[in-house]
Amino acid sequence: MAEQKATNVHWHEGDVTREDRNKLLNQKGATLWFTGLSGSGKSTVAVALEKALIERGKLTYRLDGDNIRLGINKNLGFSAEDRAENIRRIGEIAKLFVDTGVVTLSSFVSPYREDRDLVRELHNDGGMDFIEVFVDVPLEVAEERDPKGLYKKARAGEIPNFTGISDPYEEPLQPEVVLNSHEMSLEEEVELLLNLLEERGLLTA
Amino acid sequence: MAEQKATNVHWHEGDVTREDRNKLLNQKGATLWFTGLSGSGKSTVAVALEKALIERGKLTYRLDGDNIRLGINKNLGFSAEDRAENIRRIGEIAKLFVDTGVVTLSSFVSPYREDRDLVRELHNDGGMDFIEVFVDVPLEVAEERDPKGLYKKARAGEIPNFTGISDPYEEPLQPEVVLNSHEMSLEEEVELLLNLLEERGLLTA
Repeated sequence: MAEQKATNVHWHEGDVTREDRNKLLNQKGATLWFTGLSGSGKSTVAVALEKALIERGKLTYRLDGDNIRLGINKNLGFSAEDRAENIRRIGEIAKLFVDTGVVTLSSFVSPYREDRDLVRELHNDGGMDFIEVFVDVPLEVAEERDPKGLYKKARAGEIPNFTGISDPYEEPLQPEVVLNSHEMSLEEEVELLLNLLEERGLLTA
Repeated sequence: MAEQKATNVHWHEGDVTREDRNKLLNQKGATLWFTGLSGSGKSTVAVALEKALIERGKLTYRLDGDNIRLGINKNLGFSAEDRAENIRRIGEIAKLFVDTGVVTLSSFVSPYREDRDLVRELHNDGGMDFIEVFVDVPLEVAEERDPKGLYKKARAGEIPNFTGISDPYEEPLQPEVVLNSHEMSLEEEVELLLNLLEERGLLTA
């Protein structure tokens, strides 16, 4: 039990709002939803943007396989139903982070348009707080990179239903941003995203 | 597509860490897990603490039935299995918020010791970032308050498996804090919690 020390606790009337949190942070919560093939460069640009934002004093957090698939979604597999539920939960979490005021960087293949559109619909600030970033490289480029050796395994038949090989990737129809990571430098990608955040007024309260 | 404007993007080597986010916020992420009967006063004190923290410039966010049961956990019912999964998911979300640097206020009946202990185990900063707050009032007091009319319905047999009436509430064995909300003022409760956060060094980076 903690000893009682502080005195004269006061607070204003009314509940704390999303605007109060934005003001505290001097930014607005938003989700950047990076989608693209395995090996397209989603996580690379998310990591770089994360650094750039923190250096500017902006609170940001990355949602990725490491902290989601091993955490809240560890009871989900790779059936069609579980893949959809995986993306739905990530979308709901992103929405909570956005409500908190965090610039949220979500980095998942998320190959199905229907699943991504559901996440977009969950975000409800007139579309300003959801930014779909299509990291678009040709399959050949992603497969050549193959940073995790997954394409090799998929071609060998060791991974069933692998996006781009044996499962489809449904390209976004109207993404807010397209990054051709095989033709742009990482610096260019980050600059483009920072500019978009600034233009949308998300880096001030 | 956003026009490219910013130039000279630079960032330090190495990934952004939890410490970097704490430093930016000048606080440390932690979960206050309010547990107790329906009508015990969990949400009341969480709302009051939220206000007090925001007024001190500390980023905080409340997880409660409104944003969880209607969001990420809307596909869960009230079976024993679903109740456990409900708490597990909330615990995993709280952990992500803590990693972000947020003082997270979780307000759910969470009647089972096993479920709460699982959430405690998920938090892993030597126990400093998980604070179990037992909001402890006699059943008679909670039932007399009955702010949502749930006890009345439970007594009438309209709500099966209602905690305190037809389902057990397993009291915490070693909670960090006990709040007897029927004997303490709201101000006293908030002061006690603020002091604990300060003593644990959670309100600075």
